[in-house]
Amino acid sequence: MDINTIGKNAKAASRLTAAMETKQKNEILTVCGEALINNADAIIEANKADYEKAKANGMSKHMLDRLMLNKDRIEAMADGLFQIAKLPDPVGEYVSMNTLPNGLIVGQKRVPMGVIGIIYEARPNVTSDAFGLCLKAGSAVILKGGSDAINSNKAVVDILRQAIENMGINPDIVTLIEDTSRETTTALMRLNEYVDLLIPRGGAGLISAVVKNSTVPVIETGTGNCHIYVDDTAKIQMALDILINAKTQRIGVCNAAESLLVSEKIAPEFLPLAAKALKEKGVEIRGCVKTAEICKGFEIIPATDKDYATEFLDLIISVKVVKDVNEAIDHIAKYSTGHSEAIVTESYENAQKFLAQVDSAAVYVNASTRFTDGNEFGFGAEIGISTQKLHARGPMGLQALTTTKFVIYGNGQVRP
Amino acid sequence: MDINTIGKNAKAASRLTAAMETKQKNEILTVCGEALINNADAIIEANKADYEKAKANGMSKHMLDRLMLNKDRIEAMADGLFQIAKLPDPVGEYVSMNTLPNGLIVGQKRVPMGVIGIIYEARPNVTSDAFGLCLKAGSAVILKGGSDAINSNKAVVDILRQAIENMGINPDIVTLIEDTSRETTTALMRLNEYVDLLIPRGGAGLISAVVKNSTVPVIETGTGNCHIYVDDTAKIQMALDILINAKTQRIGVCNAAESLLVSEKIAPEFLPLAAKALKEKGVEIRGCVKTAEICKGFEIIPATDKDYATEFLDLIISVKVVKDVNEAIDHIAKYSTGHSEAIVTESYENAQKFLAQVDSAAVYVNASTRFTDGNEFGFGAEIGISTQKLHARGPMGLQALTTTKFVIYGNGQVRP
Repeated sequence: MDINTIGKNAKAASRLTAAMETKQKNEILTVCGEALINNADAIIEANKADYEKAKANGMSKHMLDRLMLNKDRIEAMADGLFQIAKLPDPVGEYVSMNTLPNGLIVGQKRVPMGVIGIIYEARPNVTSDAFGLCLKAGSAVILKGGSDAINSNKAVVDILRQAIENMGINPDIVTLIEDTSRETTTALMRLNEYVDLLIPRGGAGLISAVVKNSTVPVIETGTGNCHIYVDDTAKIQMALDILINAKTQRIGVCNAAESLLVSEKIAPEFLPLAAKALKEKGVEIRGCVKTAEICKGFEIIPATDKDYATEFLDLIISVKVVKDVNEAIDHIAKYSTGHSEAIVTESYENAQKFLAQVDSAAVYVNASTRFTDGNEFGFGAEIGISTQKLHARGPMGLQALTTTKFVIYGNGQVRP
Repeated sequence: MDINTIGKNAKAASRLTAAMETKQKNEILTVCGEALINNADAIIEANKADYEKAKANGMSKHMLDRLMLNKDRIEAMADGLFQIAKLPDPVGEYVSMNTLPNGLIVGQKRVPMGVIGIIYEARPNVTSDAFGLCLKAGSAVILKGGSDAINSNKAVVDILRQAIENMGINPDIVTLIEDTSRETTTALMRLNEYVDLLIPRGGAGLISAVVKNSTVPVIETGTGNCHIYVDDTAKIQMALDILINAKTQRIGVCNAAESLLVSEKIAPEFLPLAAKALKEKGVEIRGCVKTAEICKGFEIIPATDKDYATEFLDLIISVKVVKDVNEAIDHIAKYSTGHSEAIVTESYENAQKFLAQVDSAAVYVNASTRFTDGNEFGFGAEIGISTQKLHARGPMGLQALTTTKFVIYGNGQVRP
């Protein structure tokens, strides 16, 4: 089916999802989750084809693991849908309601976005997850997954659509673009007539391609060159715990730390302990000249400007000794991707300064950057973490997938 | 100065505006307003050059009037800045603040956008207005006005920058791009490194060019193909008042009505009266076949599909007789630009249905669409009216020029 028809059908279906009561949306989510479990074998078979092909093409072990589906993972996908069914419905909330002096009653009401496009890579679990979140937020969804997972995605979406159709509901509330060519993906990014919002989920390359080529409004997600700054007065053990947690608790994620800044006053005491702890976890250290001087017993690779700008997503960290909190803030302003940064300090003044002046989606005092996550923040679900400033910033829950409209009750008012 | 340098300087200046206290921002606004009044002669002289050139080039009378500045209008520009100084500061508000089970205190704080770019046409009053709103919202602004107003804009921005510099403050908090070439404008739209948000203000052509070419996030403003639907049970006089107000109170504005839909039950009674009232105001009627049949005594031009999709911004209205509220809602879904629509009805059910199902920025029961305006809604100021769904929808006040960030107070928390 051509992309225009897909868009048109999704737009038509979005009028249905927008009008659905919470109960009906939850019912669909539950039925779809059960359908995934009942048809797990078909999904696993389709996934095997993707997996074998990707393996033959030399896909990395890490990526192969993301691609692979088994019974447990399909149950987790279904469980994701059951969880979304339990979340409060974001649609219909009145953000505000006021009576104007002329008697007009003006309310701002949370309403569905319409049609949401999700462009993602080789993780087939995104398929059901994105569908569930968009539906609960009252929108139809158009999915464009990576070509590596095309058979898995087809199997999942076929099962979802069949389950929806069996309920007597238009299955165009969820559509997979089966043609994974670049031309079709670009056409989706220009489908302003039918698509209200595009969310790319994946690596920096994918996201930058969508930002560059899309005329549909985009929410940029994900890239995180996150910093931990250890201030003069930091508690040493707390700083070590936060550093090791942020860097090594999970390395391939956007809220992991990639860079360590240390105040020169505390560096002689803190850095050797940090180097030891990092090395014990197998982390490669790319440091400035001062870092190398202080950590003489450890292998410190000289850090380049590029290192300071890199999201490693690996057992690598860049390290810099800075004069004070001001230099740390300047360094972050220069190199950060605006995702998450933390200061470890016992100074009230420096804590408040860091919170006020660091311009990132999430700014921490004395905690690990790994908490930047919709579930950790208590949103119950997450479609991604926005690193742009428009519409949503930081972890995005169901509310981020909605918009508002003004509804106005009058009794004949005209403008004088 | 090249566009990259302008961007870089504005970004640096935006760290200043972000850190400014409300008092200082208000002081700058007041000083700048006074500077405009004190230097009115220089602005008027520069404006004369633009005006004469535009007149010689055959600019329409309507556009010439928008371009023209005199003492009164410059005082109004200054007054705009004084008014903005009186508005509450949107920066620093905590949208929410919660303590999580693990003791993390997570707050969502309203913070400045950073650098805002405004691309506009031949209205030099936008220059000071956009500067004032962006500054109050804590952002630096890059202005790109139309070439027709270049001398006026230069004069205004020179005066603003001089006044700011005299206060000992970096004047890069407001910059005019003096090179009005298409290349430079396109370069501004791609300045993602330095510009956080672009707002186009002007006609449909300008807005669609920005949406198509910009990689910087955009808020689409303005085009309004607004509908008035007169339902079965409407009070005739109220419907006439609302129709005439929405169509003719001011014709060149985005919240003016462009299309009238009438239920077939009330059409025989209402339409002849509507035609008479519209004709008395000099409005040309482009109607469907039924409209022509019912309004036999009046000249009704046959309406084309294109007429129903057109924002006339003129003394022209398209008219269609529809079966009922459902057909009205379908017609609006097909032709509306999603700006403002109104139903006139005494039916509770149809009022609620219209409010729920019409997917526009502002949906009215029994009031004129002309109220869709930041000042009318009580925001105290307006940078434009968003017709997109991302970030802001409908009239945009100071809040729409801000974003949020999460600030997190911990005491050593790491993720298990």
